[in-house]
Amino acid sequence: MPGSLIIALDAMGGDFGPEVVVPGASISAIRHPQISFLMFGDEARIRPLVEKDPKLAGRVEIVHTTQTIAMDAKPSQAIRRGKGSSMWLALEAVREGRAAVAVSAGNTGALMALYRLLLKPLGDIERPAIAAIWPTVRAESLVLDVGANIGATSRQLCDFALMGAGMARALFHLERPTVGLLNVGVEEIKGAEEVKEAHLWLKGASGLPFEYAGYVEGDDIGQGKVDVVVVEGFAGNIALKTAEGTARQIGTWLREAMTGSVLSKFGALLAQGGFRALKRKMDPRRVNGGTFLGHNGLAIKSHGGTDALGFASAIDLGYDMASHGLVERLRADLDAFHGALRTGVDQPPEAGGAVGN
Amino acid sequence: MPGSLIIALDAMGGDFGPEVVVPGASISAIRHPQISFLMFGDEARIRPLVEKDPKLAGRVEIVHTTQTIAMDAKPSQAIRRGKGSSMWLALEAVREGRAAVAVSAGNTGALMALYRLLLKPLGDIERPAIAAIWPTVRAESLVLDVGANIGATSRQLCDFALMGAGMARALFHLERPTVGLLNVGVEEIKGAEEVKEAHLWLKGASGLPFEYAGYVEGDDIGQGKVDVVVVEGFAGNIALKTAEGTARQIGTWLREAMTGSVLSKFGALLAQGGFRALKRKMDPRRVNGGTFLGHNGLAIKSHGGTDALGFASAIDLGYDMASHGLVERLRADLDAFHGALRTGVDQPPEAGGAVGN
Repeated sequence: MPGSLIIALDAMGGDFGPEVVVPGASISAIRHPQISFLMFGDEARIRPLVEKDPKLAGRVEIVHTTQTIAMDAKPSQAIRRGKGSSMWLALEAVREGRAAVAVSAGNTGALMALYRLLLKPLGDIERPAIAAIWPTVRAESLVLDVGANIGATSRQLCDFALMGAGMARALFHLERPTVGLLNVGVEEIKGAEEVKEAHLWLKGASGLPFEYAGYVEGDDIGQGKVDVVVVEGFAGNIALKTAEGTARQIGTWLREAMTGSVLSKFGALLAQGGFRALKRKMDPRRVNGGTFLGHNGLAIKSHGGTDALGFASAIDLGYDMASHGLVERLRADLDAFHGALRTGVDQPPEAGGAVGN
Repeated sequence: MPGSLIIALDAMGGDFGPEVVVPGASISAIRHPQISFLMFGDEARIRPLVEKDPKLAGRVEIVHTTQTIAMDAKPSQAIRRGKGSSMWLALEAVREGRAAVAVSAGNTGALMALYRLLLKPLGDIERPAIAAIWPTVRAESLVLDVGANIGATSRQLCDFALMGAGMARALFHLERPTVGLLNVGVEEIKGAEEVKEAHLWLKGASGLPFEYAGYVEGDDIGQGKVDVVVVEGFAGNIALKTAEGTARQIGTWLREAMTGSVLSKFGALLAQGGFRALKRKMDPRRVNGGTFLGHNGLAIKSHGGTDALGFASAIDLGYDMASHGLVERLRADLDAFHGALRTGVDQPPEAGGAVGN
C-alpha cells in the first residue's frame, strides 16, 4: 500500500458498520494522503463499498472475519468470546506493529477490555484512561478520565496528568500544556483526599513536562482555563455527558426561540450564516473520538451512532496521535515519573483510597 | 407583622449584602403578600434601604448585629467564631420557630456547617444534601447532592432520593415524582458499587413515595428524563458547574455568531424577541438557590454574586418549601423509610464505602 501510516479499522463497529466506516475512511484519506487502511470485518459488505470509491483505490487491505462483538456485549464476554472478531483483530494489528492505531465505533466497555488485554501497560501505570477533546471558548482542551474506570488514587491522577499533557503536546502542538485538577469549590469539604494529595504532589514536583495550574471547577472547562483537565472517570464521564446534554438542550431552546414568531423566523433566516457558524462549533462530529491512553498502542473509540463525517474525525484524531509518536513520548514521560517515584527524588504523598469507591 | 410566613434573611451575606438582600426581599414581598421578614445584620445599613421602600412597610423586623462571616471563612471558623453573626442568627431563628426558612447568599461551607450545627438531623439521616433546581427542555428537575459532601453510601443515596422526591412534590406539585440515579453508561465498569446497591434497593423496595426510574446519565438531566436526579456531591457539583459553564460558553458563541456579519446583526435584531425568550430561559437568576435538606429546618443558599432579582428567586424558593410544609413531610417519609430498615421489612443491600472517597 502507498500510505506510510496504516490505520486499523474495526469495520463492523457502531450502529451502521461498513456503511459509515468505509465512507469515513474515504473522507480521512483525502485529508491525509499518507494514510492507508487495514479494514477488519465482513468482506462481502466492505469490498463493494471500497471498490466503488476511487479515493480509496489501492489504499485499503481487507481482512475478512464474520465475527463481531455486539454493541451490548459485556466486557467479560468480549474477552472470552471476542477472539477473531473485527475489534480484536484491529487491536491485534496495533500490538503486532502492522497498524499505528486502531479505530472502532463499537462497544466502549468491550474495546477497553480488549485494549487492556491485548496491549501491555506503559511503564508502571496502574490504569488506562479515556481522554475526550472538549471544545472551549478559547480552543480545545482535553479531559481525562471520562470513563475507563470509576475512581482514581492520587498516583493514578498524576499518571492521568502526564498522559493528558503528552496528548495535548501531540494534538495541540504545545510545548508545555497547562494541567488542572477538577475539584469542587467548597473549602474544607470532607473527602476528595486523593485529589488533594495529587494537588500537593503536582504542586511540589520538579521537572514536570507540563505547567501545573492547580484546581479547576466544572465551569472552567468550557472556558478553556487549562489545556488538560484531570478527574476520575465517574465524575469525568458525568461532566462530559452533562455538557453534551446542555448543548443539546440549548440547541432545542434556540430553535424554539427562532420559530416562535414570524419576525424571529425572518431574522433567523437573515442570520443564517451566523447560525451555521454556531452549528459548526457545536457539531459533536467535529470532536468525535475518545482516546485510550496508558497502554502500549493507540486506540480511538468513535461514537457508535455517528455518521461518516464523525467517523472521519475519529480517524483524523488517531492519525494525529500516531504521526506524533504519542506512545513513545508517553512511555518516556511515564518512565521518568515512575523512576523518580522509585528513587524517591520526588516523593508523592502517601497513596489514599480512590476518589470514587 | 402582618405576614403569616416569616423568612429569616442573612442581610450581610453575598458580595453586596443589604444592597441586594433588601431589594430582593421587596420583589419577593410583592409576589407573596403573606411573607414578612426577619433581617439580621447591620441596622445602619439595612434600615435606610427598608424605610425608603414602601412595599416593605410594616413587613420587616431588623435584628441588629455587626458580626458577619467572611465569604472566605472556613467552616471550622464559622463554627468557632460565628456565634452572633447574621448567618448564625438567621438559622437560630429557624431552629427556634421564629422563622420558617433562612435564606443566605453567604459562604456555602459556613452555611452548611452552621446548618448542621444548629438544626438537628431529620430521623436517622446521616448526611444532609444540597438540592439544585435544574432547568430542562421539559420543565425543571432537581439534582442532589450538588456539594454538601463528597461521596455517599448506598443508604445515603436512598435518603437523598427520598428528600429529593419530597422537595419535588412540594415545588412541582407532583404526587409521585420520578427519581433516577446518576450513573455512567459503561456496562460492568468497576466501582460505583454504592450506586449499584442503591439501585437494587430502590428497584426492590415497596411503598416508596416516588417512582424509581433506574439509572440516568449526564445527558438525561437537561432532557428532563426524571424529576429528581440523585448523585453524590463531588460528581453532582461538577455536573452542575459544567452545565453552567457550557451554557455560558454557548452564549458566548451565539453572541459571536450574531455579530460576525452585518446580515447576522440585522437578522439578530429582527429576532430579538426570540433571543429575549431564550435569554429568559437561560437566566441563572431564575433558578437561583440551593436548598439544604436533611435537618430539622429549611435553609436556602443564594449565589453570592447575584442581584436583587436572583435573591428574590432564592426567597421564593424558600417560601415554596416552607408553605408546603416540606420539613414535616420529609420527616414522615424518612421515618417510614428508616423504620422499614430497622424492622427489616425492606432490607437494603449491605452498605459499602462511599462513592467518592
